[in-house]
Amino acid sequence: MLNVDLIEKMGNIVGTENISVASCELYCYSSDASQIRGMPEVVIKPRTTAQVSDIVRLAYEHNIPVTARGAGTGLSGGCVPLEGGIVLDMSGMNRIVEFDLDNLQVIVEPGIVQEKLNKALEPYGFFFPPDPGSSAMCTIGGLIANNGSGMRSVKYGTTRSYVLGLEIVMADGKIIKTGSKTMKTVAGYSLTDLFVGSEGTLGIITQAIIKVRALPKERSVIFASFKTPELAGKAVVKVLSSGIVPSACEILDSNIIRALNNYDPKLNLPQAGAILLFEVDGSEAEVKEGINLIVKACEDLASAIRTASDKKERDEIWAARRLAGAAISRLDPVRTRVYVGEDVGVPIKEIPKMLHKVDEISKEFDLPIMTYGHIGDGNLHTGMCIDMLSDEDWMKLNAAADKIHRTAIELGGTVTAEHGVGSARSEYMRLELGSALDVMITIKKALDPKGILNPGKMGV
Amino acid sequence: MLNVDLIEKMGNIVGTENISVASCELYCYSSDASQIRGMPEVVIKPRTTAQVSDIVRLAYEHNIPVTARGAGTGLSGGCVPLEGGIVLDMSGMNRIVEFDLDNLQVIVEPGIVQEKLNKALEPYGFFFPPDPGSSAMCTIGGLIANNGSGMRSVKYGTTRSYVLGLEIVMADGKIIKTGSKTMKTVAGYSLTDLFVGSEGTLGIITQAIIKVRALPKERSVIFASFKTPELAGKAVVKVLSSGIVPSACEILDSNIIRALNNYDPKLNLPQAGAILLFEVDGSEAEVKEGINLIVKACEDLASAIRTASDKKERDEIWAARRLAGAAISRLDPVRTRVYVGEDVGVPIKEIPKMLHKVDEISKEFDLPIMTYGHIGDGNLHTGMCIDMLSDEDWMKLNAAADKIHRTAIELGGTVTAEHGVGSARSEYMRLELGSALDVMITIKKALDPKGILNPGKMGV
Repeated sequence: MLNVDLIEKMGNIVGTENISVASCELYCYSSDASQIRGMPEVVIKPRTTAQVSDIVRLAYEHNIPVTARGAGTGLSGGCVPLEGGIVLDMSGMNRIVEFDLDNLQVIVEPGIVQEKLNKALEPYGFFFPPDPGSSAMCTIGGLIANNGSGMRSVKYGTTRSYVLGLEIVMADGKIIKTGSKTMKTVAGYSLTDLFVGSEGTLGIITQAIIKVRALPKERSVIFASFKTPELAGKAVVKVLSSGIVPSACEILDSNIIRALNNYDPKLNLPQAGAILLFEVDGSEAEVKEGINLIVKACEDLASAIRTASDKKERDEIWAARRLAGAAISRLDPVRTRVYVGEDVGVPIKEIPKMLHKVDEISKEFDLPIMTYGHIGDGNLHTGMCIDMLSDEDWMKLNAAADKIHRTAIELGGTVTAEHGVGSARSEYMRLELGSALDVMITIKKALDPKGILNPGKMGV
Repeated sequence: MLNVDLIEKMGNIVGTENISVASCELYCYSSDASQIRGMPEVVIKPRTTAQVSDIVRLAYEHNIPVTARGAGTGLSGGCVPLEGGIVLDMSGMNRIVEFDLDNLQVIVEPGIVQEKLNKALEPYGFFFPPDPGSSAMCTIGGLIANNGSGMRSVKYGTTRSYVLGLEIVMADGKIIKTGSKTMKTVAGYSLTDLFVGSEGTLGIITQAIIKVRALPKERSVIFASFKTPELAGKAVVKVLSSGIVPSACEILDSNIIRALNNYDPKLNLPQAGAILLFEVDGSEAEVKEGINLIVKACEDLASAIRTASDKKERDEIWAARRLAGAAISRLDPVRTRVYVGEDVGVPIKEIPKMLHKVDEISKEFDLPIMTYGHIGDGNLHTGMCIDMLSDEDWMKLNAAADKIHRTAIELGGTVTAEHGVGSARSEYMRLELGSALDVMITIKKALDPKGILNPGKMGV
């Protein structure tokens, strides 16, 4: 249990200016970008790995929960302290420790914001590809803990692909280092990969060796509209299974197109059954070739195709895509976007079926569902808005989300392609993972025997 | 302890034709391609996951070691049964279970040979990129257990990048499935990544979902010779740090050039200080551009540069590279190539320094070292030959290998970039991994509490 004596000891570790038990501050740390809530008992802002280690050791000795937090942009309650205790706000540990571009890597602290890292890399011609909707705010530590990805992952992979090594504070306060600056190693179990995506339940990330990529020279965007989402889904299968690798492949369904036009009439998107946005990047020749192949693959299925190599036009199209979340929230003043059931993924060839099922579920529950997302990965974001004061709306929402989750699993898919399990999706872990969940629980118990690290998450 | 009763029970599980305790057969299973030896007590050839599960459960109940084996092409003693017990020869489980190219994947049993899988994929325009020297023999299960890679990994990554999911028999015989057919998921810890590269110490792989890639349309090779290995190393740093991604980047030092010319005088390689082989693949335009950029990056450093887009010439160059191992072994009739200290890796910018250190070590111990390997990953294969009957030679070899390993670690590198830890390199795990090794040991104990799975390997 936390008491005054312990708070004082913790204050001595980080300095009294970096610790707070004020209700107003605790409240700010009681949520992420989802509807999930949980109050911490104390908020601590460490500046060094040694401070994190000392705090965690003290927490371990006294059985106090520790939940690490980056920018709080998560959508699964991942950084919400469900069992109270300590929130470690890692956003103050935000330095680029080493800028080592000869080795195609940087060493960073977890609190650095994705966009800031990319702004630092850009003058040298490099970038860190994972690009979630929250890039302007989210931290690298949060991306690593959730294995975040976003629009570019169809070509560039998820955060996992860029983490060469980690420094981690374990549940008992011990510091370990996984991986190295070497591009390729098979020395030992890939602990780096185990910690990536473990949502702070196995250890606290205090430093990361991040691999970077050369910025592509050119980009071009194709904008294809379809009579139905299923036709768009078929076009995606056709493009990907023919071996083309776009740098993005996004879908907007008719509801989201309507919401976007409503939000900003200047966008003037064609009111199709669905729109696909493909981006191709690389050298000039590669881009040209990729665009031609995608146009060819789509032309029998699409009702209209437009390409945009011009930067201004391209930026407008992506701006529209990035507005999707905001546009949904603004659609109806009494309804609020609720992030539940919003992140399923299915195998590529099941995309048309999943889109069809989402439509059926929308009709069954009389609940408009706005579908967009990284369709090139099979990842669909299904946006639902409800009147948050209506119990009936909540019941419909939860029932629809449950059906969306179960449908994705039945199609060989996942309840979360990129937003994380947190507490939002932990109840589906047994259904999706089967007895692999027991192996997860065994590992969790072995590495965090007192269960102090981010308790109540991921089903472990 | 294994006894007649247990052997009979095991025979009942797999059929008496699939179990053997004959000395001649046991002897065949007592080694891999390294010098490490250990006799099993029984060899079992399972045909189904259920059989593997039943055998492992029996072994668990009776504390009998179980070591899984693919083609036995490993170079670290990874599949050698150091503590006796059962060798599970997985080569009979070699089916392609599902050919699902619409989803860009195949489901395979672990015993399928790499080259056979690629021959089956080729007519459809796809391939499985990891390409170790042993492709013609090694199994996919072995590649997964060791996270094998080879020449293409500088562009295409290691086996890990292609494993979407696994079916695994755990130490107690339980069967779990990790991952799924979905390209992207964050549901749960990435157990798939934990098992990839765990060398059979955490579970037995019985099935794998493998992602495939579209075959590139064109390839071209650049062949650059340099006065010294350090100059070649500098050229590698220059190419890679400028963001060019070749599909292969290999080095041959002067000793290996001599060995190759000696082995097959028709090869007629220029007797340079070192030769770099770069391959670029992709569309015609991409290849042309890549070649131009590499030539430009190398021209100030190389003494001669030649490109080979013609298939015949290209095949000859790669044939020469593939002969490196054989050429070393044939160099001197009284000396045998010994695979010790042969697989270090260093960060890219340390490559010139590592090449220089290897040269110093060779002089210090008066032991010719032939260096080749996947320099684009920082991975160097240092080939040493000794008279195996000479104690002095063994002492020199082990001392030189020890120095090579310690040098790689000092430069921020690894003692094994792709061949695996096995028992050959387990003594270096503490030095390389520090307290991360304790985390590995904790996981090993949690998942295999009786220590029956491939005991004596990886330092766990």
